[in-house]
Amino acid sequence: MYGLIGKMTAVPGQRDTLIDILLEGTGEMPGCLSYIIARDPADADALWITEVWDNSDSHRASLALPAVQQAIARGKPLIAGFSHRTETQPVGGHGLAPRG
Amino acid sequence: MYGLIGKMTAVPGQRDTLIDILLEGTGEMPGCLSYIIARDPADADALWITEVWDNSDSHRASLALPAVQQAIARGKPLIAGFSHRTETQPVGGHGLAPRG
Repeated sequence: MYGLIGKMTAVPGQRDTLIDILLEGTGEMPGCLSYIIARDPADADALWITEVWDNSDSHRASLALPAVQQAIARGKPLIAGFSHRTETQPVGGHGLAPRG
Repeated sequence: MYGLIGKMTAVPGQRDTLIDILLEGTGEMPGCLSYIIARDPADADALWITEVWDNSDSHRASLALPAVQQAIARGKPLIAGFSHRTETQPVGGHGLAPRG
């Protein structure tokens, strides 16, 4: 499995709009086992995305999906930056649900 | 929802044993919506745990579960340290499966 952890900082005041865009665009992604969006309670503009994919090819392919491309286009102006990007190798646990 | 992201560093050579202990002890935790263990490919002794709970009370209660207590006792000697601990407020996504 292939995993990603990362922090995204929104343009001030746009975090919730960005979250809505991400939730809308990331619903049906083949090979996605987990994709969770979370606010950072310590930073009003920041959110965290934790992802698990069956493999890195599925993740790369998802970036070309129309819904993801639209989300990227809509979200880009609202993103001030990315940080804490960590690639991982998930080995198991609870909440790894194949969908799409 | 309540979320946690954190990095755990094992005593050299003990990461996989620690992963096994964690996987065994964290199977049935009421209120746990996601609990994923992942190796850090850039650090042979490190692993990441990303968690989502229905609320922080469920997370706190899980620490008293017999299986979790046993995992903590068995795992403690194999843990060299914790870092990158981030509390989050998950808002949605894919792979949030109530169980237990």
